Amino acid sequence: MLSQKMLELGTKSSVIREIFEYAKKRRSEIGDDKVFDFSIGNPSIPAPQSVTDAIMRLCSEKDPVALHGYTSAVGDLGVRTKIADYIKGQFGVEAKPTQIYMTCGAAASLTITLNAIINPGDEVIVLAPFFPEYRVFAEKAGAKLCVVKCREEDFQIDFEALQSAINENTKAIIVNSPNNPTGVVFSRDTVEKLADLLNEKQKQFGKTIFLIADEPYRELAYGVEVPYLPAFYDNTVVCYSYSKSLSLPGERIGYIFVPSTVCESAKVYAAVCGAGRSLGFVCAPSLLQYVIGECIGETSDVSVYQKNRDIFYNALTDMGYKVAKPDGAFYLFMKALEADANAFCEKAKKYELLLVPSDSFGYEGYVRIAYCLNEEQITRALPAFEALIKEYK
Amino acid sequence: MLSQKMLELGTKSSVIREIFEYAKKRRSEIGDDKVFDFSIGNPSIPAPQSVTDAIMRLCSEKDPVALHGYTSAVGDLGVRTKIADYIKGQFGVEAKPTQIYMTCGAAASLTITLNAIINPGDEVIVLAPFFPEYRVFAEKAGAKLCVVKCREEDFQIDFEALQSAINENTKAIIVNSPNNPTGVVFSRDTVEKLADLLNEKQKQFGKTIFLIADEPYRELAYGVEVPYLPAFYDNTVVCYSYSKSLSLPGERIGYIFVPSTVCESAKVYAAVCGAGRSLGFVCAPSLLQYVIGECIGETSDVSVYQKNRDIFYNALTDMGYKVAKPDGAFYLFMKALEADANAFCEKAKKYELLLVPSDSFGYEGYVRIAYCLNEEQITRALPAFEALIKEYK
Repeated sequence: MLSQKMLELGTKSSVIREIFEYAKKRRSEIGDDKVFDFSIGNPSIPAPQSVTDAIMRLCSEKDPVALHGYTSAVGDLGVRTKIADYIKGQFGVEAKPTQIYMTCGAAASLTITLNAIINPGDEVIVLAPFFPEYRVFAEKAGAKLCVVKCREEDFQIDFEALQSAINENTKAIIVNSPNNPTGVVFSRDTVEKLADLLNEKQKQFGKTIFLIADEPYRELAYGVEVPYLPAFYDNTVVCYSYSKSLSLPGERIGYIFVPSTVCESAKVYAAVCGAGRSLGFVCAPSLLQYVIGECIGETSDVSVYQKNRDIFYNALTDMGYKVAKPDGAFYLFMKALEADANAFCEKAKKYELLLVPSDSFGYEGYVRIAYCLNEEQITRALPAFEALIKEYK
Repeated sequence: MLSQKMLELGTKSSVIREIFEYAKKRRSEIGDDKVFDFSIGNPSIPAPQSVTDAIMRLCSEKDPVALHGYTSAVGDLGVRTKIADYIKGQFGVEAKPTQIYMTCGAAASLTITLNAIINPGDEVIVLAPFFPEYRVFAEKAGAKLCVVKCREEDFQIDFEALQSAINENTKAIIVNSPNNPTGVVFSRDTVEKLADLLNEKQKQFGKTIFLIADEPYRELAYGVEVPYLPAFYDNTVVCYSYSKSLSLPGERIGYIFVPSTVCESAKVYAAVCGAGRSLGFVCAPSLLQYVIGECIGETSDVSVYQKNRDIFYNALTDMGYKVAKPDGAFYLFMKALEADANAFCEKAKKYELLLVPSDSFGYEGYVRIAYCLNEEQITRALPAFEALIKEYK
């Protein structure tokens, strides 16, 4: 009677959701401060005061009919102009407001982009470990997902594996840097090699291969360069979200940027408009669009995450854990102390440590640790990690 | 290279969009007050003060991490509880928060519902004249659209035509009352007959036929009852939006209600969750969810529309125009003075009257007149309508 695929997606509880429910139950049993929940990747620092100020100012000063009225489907022109100018100034890449399409956040940016470009038979490559919803979005858009594992020593791209995965059906590759779940930032060297390989493959197969840059963590980088992909590869489409940079994940606000270097870029942008329309995105939330216009270039105080990263990464590696060096986002990707990450997470639970096994990210034998918490919560959890590794020694 | 269907959707300018552009050009040529633009169906009255107050209060009092953080994918429990209680109190229909799914407005409510229930080969019936995006949404969800015309004398349902249109592939029928573009409200008699017919057809074909109630105009009704469809037909799914009732069209906030009377209602709700997820709707905008929770049961001052309706409908019928009696929404559906509505609209342009030909609503020979304007704009336009009809006499 229903779409079985949609029913499955709505019924099957995700691992993270299960841990969330367990955490709630456990907290009620032993107390909030006794449970160390590292499962949820939600910003823990508030939006900057300027966001609140902008909301207040817009509500007092702007005509409510205009403030809460439909914007153009692609987004308010003034806001898109500011975003385009920011991109130009920040990354030195040509950008026009007619190349920016405002969206309801990163998920919408991705589904709209995928639905704009996918035809039956197309394949989309993701680099494991990867955000599990990529599979949901790509398959719903009609694509086959093709998983290529990153190399384990540093979680940069394994080019040999990628090279053999690209074929005549490859329509796009999704790149997420800083990465969820590893926190790794793809280096300039990686990005240059990626561009070279994609250009070579485009030539070989005589077709366009899109690089979809999923960039919600761009501003959460700690002292390293995050190469801006459109500057390296012509057929890059940027899927951006303000969820993490401005701590506004619930507000659903972001954009798609289709640079002029993209092959038939006006057509790609038009297909983006068509896809947005057919999926039911009439426009991005208007008040939040105007707020973004007022807060261009600002971020929450992300130094909090950097401090957490330093404390946590150093402490865990000192204890003897093997952790991928995270240069951004708010995740640590730590090798489980036994082959089965699920079994390891069960043992960790005895110490009230709630970690996410890496299997759902398409990579076995690791756990994701989200450190978007306050510093005190992290330092209080360290003895539990100490006790856990002792059990294995 | 791209999805041709999405490219077409994004490229083909809608009739209303073309009129919008023409109006902009014309206004710059002859002045704002000389152009009578009846093409756009945007609320012209502001959101109630309580909406602004709620935004201000939430921003000053609620922790920003919670205010702007992810809600549950189905929406904040407190807000859903208030909506369920409101439905129960207002319509006497059992409703629980676990049957409410918060959405980014009516378009999202429709695409999510359609994607939840449609399988390849399914048909969706719409009653002409109908909102043109129904075709876009239904076809993208994989359904074949089947158009059944309403009877011309009163734009109620033509049951003979509907009866013969329903077949073993019929998965759903979309009903929009008060209607865009006619303003007609389906009477209790119509709704009872519809329920009887659908029940009979369900029995005949041994399957569920969903009634999708698209209800953005529910609160814009002028002295008539708008029957609440779940009270009449078990397999009704309500797609609601606050765009019109609270004048918040740009904010994209609404909900889907899956009543317990729906066959396997928990599964339908789960499929809704799955569809929302796969289309890229992570949650409805959080601030606006909380605002809705604070403003349940309120509306903008819709008496303004009623007054416009009275003035406009009376004046036009007095002049000799044939207009469907509109009991709600903010549209008049007027018979063109020649068979070709497009030719009629071109003639109307000579008098600076911008009307929408009915063809894109799946019905020929009429025009849609949106009267969500201020009273003065309407009265100033009346001489132009007078002059137009004289030309035909």
